[in-house]
Amino acid sequence: MQQYELAVLPGDGIGNEVMPEALRVLDVVGAKYGVRFGYRHFDWSCQTYRSTGRMMPADGLDRLRDHDAILLGAVGWPGVPDHLSLWGLLLPIRREFDQYVNLRPVRLLPGVTPPVRDKRPGDIDFWVVRENTEGEYSQLGGRQGEGTPNEMVLQTAAFTRRGTDRIMRYAFELARKLGKPHVTSATKSNGIYYSMPYWDERFAAIAAEYPDVTVDQDHIDILCARFVLSPERFDVVVASNLFGDILSDLGPGVTGTIGVAPSGNINPERTYPSTFEPVHGSAPDIAGRGIANPIGQIWSAAMMLDHLGLTEAGADVVRAIEHVLADTTAPRTPDLGGKATTEDLGKAVAAAL
Amino acid sequence: MQQYELAVLPGDGIGNEVMPEALRVLDVVGAKYGVRFGYRHFDWSCQTYRSTGRMMPADGLDRLRDHDAILLGAVGWPGVPDHLSLWGLLLPIRREFDQYVNLRPVRLLPGVTPPVRDKRPGDIDFWVVRENTEGEYSQLGGRQGEGTPNEMVLQTAAFTRRGTDRIMRYAFELARKLGKPHVTSATKSNGIYYSMPYWDERFAAIAAEYPDVTVDQDHIDILCARFVLSPERFDVVVASNLFGDILSDLGPGVTGTIGVAPSGNINPERTYPSTFEPVHGSAPDIAGRGIANPIGQIWSAAMMLDHLGLTEAGADVVRAIEHVLADTTAPRTPDLGGKATTEDLGKAVAAAL
Ligand SMILES: CC(C)[C@H](C(=O)O)[C@@H](O)C(=O)O
Ligand SMILES: CC(C)[C@H](C(=O)O)[C@@H](O)C(=O)O
Repeated sequence: MQQYELAVLPGDGIGNEVMPEALRVLDVVGAKYGVRFGYRHFDWSCQTYRSTGRMMPADGLDRLRDHDAILLGAVGWPGVPDHLSLWGLLLPIRREFDQYVNLRPVRLLPGVTPPVRDKRPGDIDFWVVRENTEGEYSQLGGRQGEGTPNEMVLQTAAFTRRGTDRIMRYAFELARKLGKPHVTSATKSNGIYYSMPYWDERFAAIAAEYPDVTVDQDHIDILCARFVLSPERFDVVVASNLFGDILSDLGPGVTGTIGVAPSGNINPERTYPSTFEPVHGSAPDIAGRGIANPIGQIWSAAMMLDHLGLTEAGADVVRAIEHVLADTTAPRTPDLGGKATTEDLGKAVAAAL
Repeated sequence: MQQYELAVLPGDGIGNEVMPEALRVLDVVGAKYGVRFGYRHFDWSCQTYRSTGRMMPADGLDRLRDHDAILLGAVGWPGVPDHLSLWGLLLPIRREFDQYVNLRPVRLLPGVTPPVRDKRPGDIDFWVVRENTEGEYSQLGGRQGEGTPNEMVLQTAAFTRRGTDRIMRYAFELARKLGKPHVTSATKSNGIYYSMPYWDERFAAIAAEYPDVTVDQDHIDILCARFVLSPERFDVVVASNLFGDILSDLGPGVTGTIGVAPSGNINPERTYPSTFEPVHGSAPDIAGRGIANPIGQIWSAAMMLDHLGLTEAGADVVRAIEHVLADTTAPRTPDLGGKATTEDLGKAVAAAL
């Protein structure tokens, strides 16, 4: 029996509550498809930071390296500055493991009432392909004149040809694979003087390699408005690190699925493990009460299955999620308007398999 | 009779069609309130660029300097790269005239059906206060290794203490003036390592000067989602140049008012003229047909009146706009679902005064 070794990092807050439900579902779907998952747990979190001054041990990345994939819950907790917790754990994993694709679906789901009117499941169904290793998220920069009126902070974004081309090619390949040959580029070349005109230049160059794929591009300001006004026009949206971050939260905002949206941080070459994590955070406001919605974590596990080549199993889990959401008699956590617990909902998805 | 000298720059595309309607309304409201407006027209545009290689003459800014305010239509046209047209006209005006506040209302208007459900006029009514002279919009940066596989582009954002503090103080003062003492800061300090933690630090420092004002902050990704999910929670949102750009298009996207939203580029010290322009662009798709909605331009003129101290006149124009929009028998341009012309709608607003 094929066995996959997974690194499991629940992280902070509700990460610890939703992760067991994803593992529950993995066990069930594994049994169904004749594969086994081994889990190695890592308790790295903001608590680790408070006791050791680090989010993970010095050899942390080495300890993750030899896994088939990483399942992550959520990172961040009040009291530890976000940029320290994220740059101490989540972002180094994305970068060191060259997980240069951050892939997130925007999909209107049955049983979820979106905040926008007149849209039905099927109307909104696209992917945001976000660059995940360079761009605006950078530690290039610094401060001068600290504490004086002349104080000034510089922050440099870096766009390499290699980094730009590979994320765009991934987007074009995905559009082809989905049978929706249409890619939209998120830009801001009218305001951001060097990097975004370069982004456009590379988009045009890569688009020329894919003559069968239709392209368009929108400045990020109007693109955000279009996510609200005409989300049905999108199939694959390719964006820089920051723009992709914005769009992949806004998209699930528009479909009402922020609490359940998944993401994959993917190293397409499989030189390193990829990380799968829900879009939601550690949710200090509800943590510890066992009422967090586990679907984002479970759906992330489904994306992992797909990445591992277990395509049928992954699709099966997504179907189970959709089935439970559409079933008005199924358990619902408070965010979905019900009173069910995290475990109730996890068990319901497992049962639907 | 008090006379104001205005610089009028219709710019490109529909800028030329909506501007006359704003002037029409200004003439009427001027007569009503006993003030006069003198207009000096400047035809600087992408056409100027094509014939002269510049968006405006070398002494362009000097020729604008001695006006009480600038009314601008829209800048940008296919064939002239956006970063050249914008950095050749719009952005130098904002910067050289130290118009460090970009102020834009997000308001649900009567007669406009928003894309979000269950919201009524009054529910959504807030201001985005955007930094307008520094930050992510910068010409600091460059390219190395052009044309090689090692090609790399750097783009540096600059945040000064002076620039950050003054935009935040403006936001807090505005919140007080509106009688809605609540300011939300747009940040991304979990991902953007130097500039955004600095932004948060200054926000905390300035907030301490305004103990009567409630504050909160959201990362830009979740903030965008909240603009869709719970826009009623906002009163004044303060943001960097880029984040403010995004939010002040997304906001009118959510209220369905992108085609009619105004903006002020304000130099609060009145050392230089301020610029008032609609949020919409030059709209090449409908330009030349006389069907553009002039309300964004007219509403921008209303913001100008307020800035010039003609507060009652400004409020009167806004009321006239609301009256015409709410009146189902009034003319409607195609974007509002009708068949009226730009001129019909402009005349209707003028008549409502
Ligand atoms: C045209 C562009 C440079 C401009 C900006 O980004 O500032 C526009 O989007 C705006 O918001 O006024
Ligand atoms: C927590 C934060 C650094 C992270 C990001 O911006 O990448 C999160 O918003 C995400 O999208 O995964």
